[in-house]
Order: sequence, then C-alpha cells, then structure tokens
Amino acid sequence: MRKVSVFNNVSIDGYYTDADNDYGFAHEGADDPELQKFTAANAKGENALVFGRLTYELMAAWWPSKDAARAMPEVAKGMNAAPKYVFSLTLSKADWANTTLLKSDPAKEIARLKKTAGPDLTILGSGSIVAQLAKAGLVDEVQLMVCPVVLGAGKSQFAGARARWTLARSRTFGNGRVFLAYELAA
Amino acid sequence: MRKVSVFNNVSIDGYYTDADNDYGFAHEGADDPELQKFTAANAKGENALVFGRLTYELMAAWWPSKDAARAMPEVAKGMNAAPKYVFSLTLSKADWANTTLLKSDPAKEIARLKKTAGPDLTILGSGSIVAQLAKAGLVDEVQLMVCPVVLGAGKSQFAGARARWTLARSRTFGNGRVFLAYELAA
Repeated sequence: MRKVSVFNNVSIDGYYTDADNDYGFAHEGADDPELQKFTAANAKGENALVFGRLTYELMAAWWPSKDAARAMPEVAKGMNAAPKYVFSLTLSKADWANTTLLKSDPAKEIARLKKTAGPDLTILGSGSIVAQLAKAGLVDEVQLMVCPVVLGAGKSQFAGARARWTLARSRTFGNGRVFLAYELAA
Repeated sequence: MRKVSVFNNVSIDGYYTDADNDYGFAHEGADDPELQKFTAANAKGENALVFGRLTYELMAAWWPSKDAARAMPEVAKGMNAAPKYVFSLTLSKADWANTTLLKSDPAKEIARLKKTAGPDLTILGSGSIVAQLAKAGLVDEVQLMVCPVVLGAGKSQFAGARARWTLARSRTFGNGRVFLAYELAA
C-alpha cells in the first residue's frame, strides 16, 4: 500500500493559510539553516505530490519559474520532476510537468491509487483535499510545522475530520518552529 | 506589573472546545502521572484566575462540588481558594468563593488590574476574553497543551488576534500531548 502523508506549515491557531489564502507567514524564518537541513532530509523528493486546485495553481506558477530555480534550485528541480496529481472539476488541463489532472472523487481516487504500485503520496496545502481524505481514514501521517504566529482567522485542513491521532515524532527548532508528526491512531 | 498568561488545552487543529462548547477531549489521557506532575508544578495555584461567563459557569459548577473534591482534592482546593474574576454583562452575581464579577471592558479592566498590586493573572478557557486581551497586547504568555486529537470544528481563542510570538518552552509527553509556551514577541 502506498502511504499518504500531509505536510503543512500551520499557525499556532491551526490554520495553513490566512483568511485571504495567503501563506506568507510560512516564509518568515524559513531561511534558517537548521530548518532547511531538516526540510531537505524530510522531503526526500521521491514521493508523488497531491494537490487541490488552489494549491496547485500557486505551486505551478512558482516552481517552474526562473526565480524559483535561482532561489531554491534543488527543491525546484525536485518539485518539477515529481509525479503530481491535482484534483479539480474546473481545470481543463494541467500543464506543470508530470501532472495528472483528476476529476473523480478525491477519497475514491486516492483509495484506488493507494493500492497501485508507485511512490508514496504527499499532500501539500490543499486543506479541502486533506479534510476529505482524513474523514475517509486515508491519511496515514500528518506532519505539521507549527510557526510562531497567530493568524487570528484562516483555513483549516481538517474541517469535519474529527479523530484521535498518535504523536509519532516532534522536534523544536531554534527559530521557534515546532515540528509535530502524527500517525493514524490504532 | 502583574503578568497575564493563558493556559488552554487545544486540539491539533487549534480549538479549545468543539463546536458544541465541549472540551471533553482534554480529559482523555489527563490521568497520566507524568502529565499530572507537570500540571501540578505548572499551576502553582498562586495566581488569580480570569474567566469569561461560559467558562466561569462550567468551572463554578464543578470545582466546589463533592465530586471534584473526591476526584482532584488538591486542585479543587486551589481553584476554590484562588482569587477569581469573571467578565459578564448578563450575570447579576458570581457566587463561587473569592470571585469578583466585572462588567467593564475586559481590555480596559485587565490593563488597569495589571498595574495594581497582586498575584499574576491566568486565563483558562474563555476564548473571547483571550482574543480581546491578545488583540490589545495584554497577554504576556500563552501556554498550550496540544492534545492528539483533531476536532474538525470548534472555537478558537485567538479570533482576530494576528501577531508574532516567541517560543519560550516546549515539552513532549509520553501520552502524546505537547506543551508549547509562547511569549509576546519583542
């Protein structure tokens, strides 16, 4: 079975974007060497990536750009090369390299994909997809990087997905971020 | 200056109660000896307590009871003995021992109280009060005990209180809870 994990930067109050879909808070302090080393090791770049449309459009506009290649060459290379899936009923095509556009129900499609051969799946951003998959019990691990900021309002990635989880790992960074990884409770 | 701190159990998704004002999630695993030792040391019982009406009514119904005295004798004794403030425009009296009913604006009243002599102030629950005080820059420390549960919906204690904080301390517990303490960013 392919494993499904979520990675998101979140605020102290649990949001992965503010009320305007802005996740700029996640960039503050992101150039910290300790954090960058961890991120590079944590995101080995071998996974397939899963997005909802909003997150896909943000990422597809950034990672193939010359600015991204200059700013974060290794990460950009990995993001562009990775197999990607985007769920959208409104997009008619998905031009970012190695992207498959999916129009089926996310829970049904991921349940099917999990049983196929291939790399593990990582969801970035995409709170609506995370919530749908978590409600269906299809998320094996949630990785949160808690940033030292309160947003005061924003979007949650777990709407309606009430469940117990098991803390698997945690790590505190010198820049005040706290990494928390939870696995599906037995 | 008296220090104002907040202590709340929160879910992974940042809520201190679920959508029905229920905080039963915070009781699951709360009988863990490691956690109880920490809680007893952390809440030294010397602070004055601050509540909004909803939290006050829940606490006032529990801590003076015989059940509470049986279940948690030391904590009950401390809670009943502590000086307490409740903000409410609808209550006409507050009968729980050592409670002062306040009808003024929470931010103005706490700003005034901070300058008086007396014990430090701790807010429990009371998200609307926390948000108002945090927006006014009157909260010196936020202590969160992150419980390993997603609620999927609920009440936030930081509505509208966007701000950067500084991580001061953190601790992971064997039962999967994570304690995070933040101080007001300089």
